[in-house]
Amino acid sequence: MSERLVVIGADAAGMSAASQARRLQGPDELEIVAFERGRFTSYSACGIPYWVGGDVDSRDALIARTPEEHRERSIDLRMRTEVTEIDVPGRRVRARDLESGEEYWTAYDKLVIATGALPVRPELPGIDAPGVHGVQTLEDGEALLDTLRHTRGERAVVVGAGYIGVEMAEALANRGYRVTVVNRGAQPMATLDPDMGALVGEAMTGLGMEMVNDAEVTKILTGEDGRVRAVATDDAEYAADVVILGIGVRPNTGLARNAGLPLGEHGGLLTDLAMRVRDPRAEGAIWAGGDCVEVLDLVSGRERHIALGTHANKHGQIIGSGVGGDYGTFPGVVGTAVSKVCDLEIARTGLREKDAQAAGLQYVTATIESTSRAGYFPGAALMTVKMLAERRTGRLLGVQIVGREGAAKRVDVAAVALTAGLTVTQLTTLDLGYAPPFSPVWDPVLVAARKAVTAVRRAG
Amino acid sequence: MSERLVVIGADAAGMSAASQARRLQGPDELEIVAFERGRFTSYSACGIPYWVGGDVDSRDALIARTPEEHRERSIDLRMRTEVTEIDVPGRRVRARDLESGEEYWTAYDKLVIATGALPVRPELPGIDAPGVHGVQTLEDGEALLDTLRHTRGERAVVVGAGYIGVEMAEALANRGYRVTVVNRGAQPMATLDPDMGALVGEAMTGLGMEMVNDAEVTKILTGEDGRVRAVATDDAEYAADVVILGIGVRPNTGLARNAGLPLGEHGGLLTDLAMRVRDPRAEGAIWAGGDCVEVLDLVSGRERHIALGTHANKHGQIIGSGVGGDYGTFPGVVGTAVSKVCDLEIARTGLREKDAQAAGLQYVTATIESTSRAGYFPGAALMTVKMLAERRTGRLLGVQIVGREGAAKRVDVAAVALTAGLTVTQLTTLDLGYAPPFSPVWDPVLVAARKAVTAVRRAG
Repeated sequence: MSERLVVIGADAAGMSAASQARRLQGPDELEIVAFERGRFTSYSACGIPYWVGGDVDSRDALIARTPEEHRERSIDLRMRTEVTEIDVPGRRVRARDLESGEEYWTAYDKLVIATGALPVRPELPGIDAPGVHGVQTLEDGEALLDTLRHTRGERAVVVGAGYIGVEMAEALANRGYRVTVVNRGAQPMATLDPDMGALVGEAMTGLGMEMVNDAEVTKILTGEDGRVRAVATDDAEYAADVVILGIGVRPNTGLARNAGLPLGEHGGLLTDLAMRVRDPRAEGAIWAGGDCVEVLDLVSGRERHIALGTHANKHGQIIGSGVGGDYGTFPGVVGTAVSKVCDLEIARTGLREKDAQAAGLQYVTATIESTSRAGYFPGAALMTVKMLAERRTGRLLGVQIVGREGAAKRVDVAAVALTAGLTVTQLTTLDLGYAPPFSPVWDPVLVAARKAVTAVRRAG
Repeated sequence: MSERLVVIGADAAGMSAASQARRLQGPDELEIVAFERGRFTSYSACGIPYWVGGDVDSRDALIARTPEEHRERSIDLRMRTEVTEIDVPGRRVRARDLESGEEYWTAYDKLVIATGALPVRPELPGIDAPGVHGVQTLEDGEALLDTLRHTRGERAVVVGAGYIGVEMAEALANRGYRVTVVNRGAQPMATLDPDMGALVGEAMTGLGMEMVNDAEVTKILTGEDGRVRAVATDDAEYAADVVILGIGVRPNTGLARNAGLPLGEHGGLLTDLAMRVRDPRAEGAIWAGGDCVEVLDLVSGRERHIALGTHANKHGQIIGSGVGGDYGTFPGVVGTAVSKVCDLEIARTGLREKDAQAAGLQYVTATIESTSRAGYFPGAALMTVKMLAERRTGRLLGVQIVGREGAAKRVDVAAVALTAGLTVTQLTTLDLGYAPPFSPVWDPVLVAARKAVTAVRRAG
């Protein structure tokens, strides 16, 4: 007798899970029903800023797999259909067709919750005015591009200076807008330490963007036509023909919360290593992954919420294996993230200083400047590398890199080293690729490690 | 009472050692005498192809530190002076001033042997003809550039298709030469498996270079003026206005051999983990590093000879620490190397198939194609990744990458994973940096790891 899998949310995690389960079990063994309240499946939300900015020329380029392609693999995909309730003891979900309004209950043997994240949207006067846009979904991207095409304007305000904020600042600058970034923190990129964030701020100012730090948006001002005309803080007003909200996201777990499923301190679903929801009532038949779950940070030992497509895809792969009777686990993350603003590359992995403090770790820091290639080689670009190491043990705790071409992906070396628990002394002798077009004879990560070794010794 | 350190060879390993020792101990504690038979110190031999090719515009750009700069740090540097004998029991070396012919013995308390490597130079008729050049030293580079400047010519033959060979092929193509590469192996880049080397060969042919594989050079033919005019193999002759010998190097250890110091099967000096020569007569007072030593391959457990500036610098750093009374070790290498031919990037780390066989390891392979950035992002470039994993355990054994921009340095992830002994299953969940301008949502290394996991399971 065949089993029935229900998937809630048909983006990266959900459809990776469905696809992997389908690879392992054919339609005779496993019926798959997937619900998606939006109009798109399996797309790269991370690509939206580049589509808005013009690097990517069409919406469809961001879509890895269409609803039709999923259906060809015998997945019963129900678009524009929202799951409104999960009945855990009854092993069924209630769905509502958003077009017809029809509601119905449908049973599952196995359930995958992949409801993603929702943008943080502060309750500000004017926030719903035309010209104010989020950029989380393809629908958001379409609406923003529609505004950009049909509105004569030259001033853009981006609220928030995290990854989405800085990427959207680049996108709008590429579109010819004069960009102001209004940021609550003392420096942009709060995912970096302030000293490293300051480098990003300087570079953005150098790119002609106006950076407003330590500023809380209090309202969105509109003109006589009802459209946005400015963003106000306590201190000032910033004229805006378009406003982008890039304040961050939170797990979309209202459904899970109402079903009594366990949420963590960041509001994300809590799972075991096989991505099964930690609830005895689920009896191992409910999985969750992607932007709606919390993940274990392997360095701090704490749960975190990280909305990132690469994790969502891995979760989906592992969930699909579990659903299909195979085996896999997601051990956790080390917090790696890379981004760019025009030609400035930004990367981090592991703990910032305040993360280390919160985790009870004593640490030293080392910051160095080096180049992406041998200093004498054309195109050698400066980068700053900051490294955190645990006091006494010298264990690597984190790395942050800000620089030009060739800077960001160097953080991967540190990501692997964090996963393996290497010390900074071990880092200094790593056999990294060297040739003048690719690296100085001491790779910048190794230069930072050498300085960190000295700092660990001095700290005693 | 101060001690006396003698350093033989004043390039990367020797002068890194001298400089680090000097950092730890001032001239009152440690007298440092360094002998160098050439005219230059501390230069980047790896940069020579780019100087010849015109990417780097001057010889001096390749010199990290001049003799004068070393002398300013109280190092008694004796240039154009060759050490001709080491008297281990007597703790002294004999030196000959190559200008004056004067010979003398000088005592040491501590000795560093950093005599480097010598190019392999087959005993072929005509090999000493004008127009035939090696490219190992700055002097070699100067002589070659002199030939290129003063000889009208359009055809270059490069003998050997390893790193130096392919880099010199690029350099001469950049100089406008029609380049023929004559290669003993079935494919270029014998440091890769043949299937990956074939990709390099195809790309070089696509760049307009003539690739002659499976060909042994039998003689160098000269014209009436005595200059080179062609390179002959058993089967054919290849017209040449200039010939580059890029056949490889061997440890320069005649001096050490004559002194009875222990050499390994590749002819390099054998040291312990602190880079001290493994000879009880040395009583821990003789160190060796750089291109004249063998290093432990951490994956195969065997000694190898690898002439590479990045190792030489690390050795020097560790030797200098030991000499100066501090502590450090060089645990070994995993065999990482990166290179390029024009826009083709080539990288490897760990074991090739034949290395795994020789080490007694059973393995599986997985080869995949992926891109350097998200497929939809401008500039996304193809790369091929081949991965070797141990049968049963799934331990990563090696990675080879051939591709375009952004391919080569991805090998560093595998280098760290090899150092840490990770399995390919562990690789699949590595938290590597992801954003569309930097990587597909599954980094190419992870895609290869996923396929390798399947291969390990199938092999049983």
